[in-house]
Amino acid sequence: MLELNAGQIKSMNLSELSQLCDKARQEIISTVFKNGGHLSSNLGTVELTVALHYVFDFPRDKIVFDVGHQCYTHKLLSGRADKFSTIRKKGGLSGFPKREESEYDCYNTGHAGTSVSAALGIAKARDVKGEDFNVIALIGDGSFNNGLIYEAFNSLRLLNTRILVILNDNGMSISPTVGSMHEYLEILSNDSAHNAKRQRHATIFERFGFKYDGVYDGNNLVGMIEKLTEIKEALKTQSVILHVMTQKGKGYEFCEENPEATHGISISSSDNYSKEYSEVLGATLSGLAEKDERIVAVTAAMTSSLGLGGFFEKYPGRSVDVGICEEHATILCASMAAAGLKPYYAVYSTFLQRSYDEIVIDICSQNLPVTLCIDRAGISGSDGETHQGVFDISFLSSVPNLAIAVPKDVKEFEAMVKFSAGYNAPLAIRYPREGVRVFRQQSEIVLGKWEILKKGDGKCAVIACGERAVSLALAASQILEEKNIAVKVINARFVKPLDKAMLDSLSENRIVTIEDNMLAGGLGSLIDCYYSDKDKRIKNFAYGDEFIAHGGVGELMDGLGLNCGAIAEYIENEIG
Amino acid sequence: MLELNAGQIKSMNLSELSQLCDKARQEIISTVFKNGGHLSSNLGTVELTVALHYVFDFPRDKIVFDVGHQCYTHKLLSGRADKFSTIRKKGGLSGFPKREESEYDCYNTGHAGTSVSAALGIAKARDVKGEDFNVIALIGDGSFNNGLIYEAFNSLRLLNTRILVILNDNGMSISPTVGSMHEYLEILSNDSAHNAKRQRHATIFERFGFKYDGVYDGNNLVGMIEKLTEIKEALKTQSVILHVMTQKGKGYEFCEENPEATHGISISSSDNYSKEYSEVLGATLSGLAEKDERIVAVTAAMTSSLGLGGFFEKYPGRSVDVGICEEHATILCASMAAAGLKPYYAVYSTFLQRSYDEIVIDICSQNLPVTLCIDRAGISGSDGETHQGVFDISFLSSVPNLAIAVPKDVKEFEAMVKFSAGYNAPLAIRYPREGVRVFRQQSEIVLGKWEILKKGDGKCAVIACGERAVSLALAASQILEEKNIAVKVINARFVKPLDKAMLDSLSENRIVTIEDNMLAGGLGSLIDCYYSDKDKRIKNFAYGDEFIAHGGVGELMDGLGLNCGAIAEYIENEIG
Repeated sequence: MLELNAGQIKSMNLSELSQLCDKARQEIISTVFKNGGHLSSNLGTVELTVALHYVFDFPRDKIVFDVGHQCYTHKLLSGRADKFSTIRKKGGLSGFPKREESEYDCYNTGHAGTSVSAALGIAKARDVKGEDFNVIALIGDGSFNNGLIYEAFNSLRLLNTRILVILNDNGMSISPTVGSMHEYLEILSNDSAHNAKRQRHATIFERFGFKYDGVYDGNNLVGMIEKLTEIKEALKTQSVILHVMTQKGKGYEFCEENPEATHGISISSSDNYSKEYSEVLGATLSGLAEKDERIVAVTAAMTSSLGLGGFFEKYPGRSVDVGICEEHATILCASMAAAGLKPYYAVYSTFLQRSYDEIVIDICSQNLPVTLCIDRAGISGSDGETHQGVFDISFLSSVPNLAIAVPKDVKEFEAMVKFSAGYNAPLAIRYPREGVRVFRQQSEIVLGKWEILKKGDGKCAVIACGERAVSLALAASQILEEKNIAVKVINARFVKPLDKAMLDSLSENRIVTIEDNMLAGGLGSLIDCYYSDKDKRIKNFAYGDEFIAHGGVGELMDGLGLNCGAIAEYIENEIG
Repeated sequence: MLELNAGQIKSMNLSELSQLCDKARQEIISTVFKNGGHLSSNLGTVELTVALHYVFDFPRDKIVFDVGHQCYTHKLLSGRADKFSTIRKKGGLSGFPKREESEYDCYNTGHAGTSVSAALGIAKARDVKGEDFNVIALIGDGSFNNGLIYEAFNSLRLLNTRILVILNDNGMSISPTVGSMHEYLEILSNDSAHNAKRQRHATIFERFGFKYDGVYDGNNLVGMIEKLTEIKEALKTQSVILHVMTQKGKGYEFCEENPEATHGISISSSDNYSKEYSEVLGATLSGLAEKDERIVAVTAAMTSSLGLGGFFEKYPGRSVDVGICEEHATILCASMAAAGLKPYYAVYSTFLQRSYDEIVIDICSQNLPVTLCIDRAGISGSDGETHQGVFDISFLSSVPNLAIAVPKDVKEFEAMVKFSAGYNAPLAIRYPREGVRVFRQQSEIVLGKWEILKKGDGKCAVIACGERAVSLALAASQILEEKNIAVKVINARFVKPLDKAMLDSLSENRIVTIEDNMLAGGLGSLIDCYYSDKDKRIKNFAYGDEFIAHGGVGELMDGLGLNCGAIAEYIENEIG
């Protein structure tokens, strides 16, 4: 194991620093293959991070990691090597920067493009308080597509402050980086021998008030130390963009050759997946698109993970990955729908948060037939607070014109995607990554209609949405059956609109709701509202008012009260 | 009145077109002074719009107006002159582009920076469907700061399509435009005589795949017709940015001299305002900042309307208007808080929607002491769907760590702002524009504590938040008093956390909630959840599942069931 006291790095010679890089790299590889996590991005930034720690004075100097999936070496070098084996485990180190964990982490990240804004804010605070330290944003070229970068650059002069932006260019976000900014960065890189031409190109950054310096080899430890030492001096008077090239997956041949597949490594906790939802999306949508030429697909930088690799190959003219630009992707979908197409926007739940305003204004206030395919909904697990998809029902349920569907399994998901093709208004379908089971019962999808999975004896109805919640409901009902309690189990396929006819018809006085989402604004709260002036006694199983840290999906749900034992116990106590 | 058949403009000669401009301008001035609305922005674009209608073939060709507050001439020229006197009135024309209103409006707007994305989507749909027409985005330099523009530009080549972007540069958003992009546009403008130098600068747009053409006088009708005719030809093979300068408020001296004050004209429906909330914010925050040097203020392009003009003048080093960059503004606040400052982000409710992800991830998951001052919350009136502030409680109520305060009047608002200074966690305070009344009762603000305004006789408790809802509650209670029904009236100062002690202590079995917000995720739904397993019969007065079009605040609330008569009637029927 790599052992290192914070600060110790300062006294190392080059040979020791080089060995440190090797050790860090080994530690990252062996730990990620045990715990899962971001591999290639972390392997690419080992030398750069060691050089930063050698040249700068952390934690006095501050560094903000964009997205944060390249912070492992930083964690190893800042007194956390002994806990590194716990990374991404419940109660262990976070896989992202975390202020609560170490004073070396000055700002938590997880979503793309925030680092330059955050570095500017920290620098501005330094100036207001009359302090003196350096502030660094380390950002990949994938994040560089995001509009936030432009907004931050645009205010550099306004804020009248100084920061260092290190552009870590590896040609990848999760998918390969796309778009004109990427092409521009490529030109800068290719021109590195032709200084005059490069300087002309660099004007795009200089316009914003940065001194541009690049392109250098970010995997060259000695070169990085020299360059950063020079820049540390320059930072006393101006802001600098340092453009370095690194190799994603550096030092591990398999990663170097498969940077997209090894961006994140998942350690599966279950061997009996039926299928991932994303696979079903890809296959179903490709099938539908054969018959309906209006169907187009849009993603924001993670086409393969969303299952749309095949669709994109088959329909290159009808698919677009816009890079990490969730807002723009949403408006593209709305406007293509306004002009007569049938767009599908596939996105992870947590990143859809970026599109909230555009969902309200562009898609829903215009009542346009865009389908949001919301992957990684519910607790997503080891990535922690910034990646849990537990807010989507809450922020979508108050948006008029939007229907929200939640499939109980991959089969029902397939039926919902097929349903969407004939549905001419805004629709969101939310689902987790893994489809674990397939239920026997499969009936036709009708807008706002639920299905009864178990009849019960008229005392208690359990209303659940989504595979995880429906599974819990059925498991609880089985526990109860052994105690001669028969509950009705309802699959609430649509959170919006509610199945009011079914709600009106329920004779049960005790109602239990279960969902893999926050309570406020969730399925439970919608049912509470619907029954607010009725004589029903309702218990909501959902997530309460707290952020959910990293851990396994099952153990996290369990710890938060979403377990069949607790549900069965509640019902038994109520009606037993 | 200006009368004009759609298409008639094509056969006009220059002198007639010039007269048409005069007529349109007169019509806009006289109507806006009657109905309120956007004045200066519309006056600035009269010639440009007439030239566009002369040269292009609407509605076959498509134009997307960024934000949309410069579309009045377009409305006048597209068969809506006879209804123009109804603009912004309930049931009349919208003050923004609206597809439901005319086939000449191809895409609804209202929030900044969406036009280039939307134009790209429409152009992409055209290409996919094999159609042939021109797509134009008309965008002001204020919107040009927004990150969406950059995201859209970045994908132009990816989408492999053609659009015309007209950059309408008047040096203003609502406040004067700020930031480096603005400075860059100024350089382009000043260089117009020096073609070589200008061409070098233009590279920033050319990088993204546009041909750049500018700068021209957008108020010169003949020049615009000639230039647009030329560009229409160029558009057959490539995308173009046309950079024009216009004078905001052109042709009306008062507006030319006061473009910020005359950006929007309000026709007050009430003469007995006590004070605007924004004034109170400015005065209170300035006072607090004298004692607390950590206090900083951030706005996104509407400093004066938010009441912070004085603060900005008094504390230039501790205030920043970042332009129309709501996401960046939010992260700046979060990061300044992480570095020890006490930031206030003042913003209109509807524009805060842009910051949803950053509120969740940057502010709240880090539990940072940022105060969101949410102005124009609730129904905002004549601007319609895209500007109603009715979603904020809904999208904020499920965010952990965030407290949400809603003042019953300007006095209480002042007390809440003072409370915020000592509160060390995320806090949102939401309030409407106009403070109409000041209540006699004023008590100390304590986190999560409500106040009882009227005692009642134990049968029914009315729980309301915010000035409008509390006023309705009291008005309803007075109607009921005449019928010998005494209801308890509670001012729910904090929507989050709820005053659980008070909720637990209420002996009333009938509960009524009132709020100027959507029901789903709102105060009512939180109370429904809290009481879901209790024996309470609850009725929620809030907005249902539909978008709210333009009209007067009072008449809209009234029409949506938020009126004291309906509330009193419900209670009388229930317990009378």
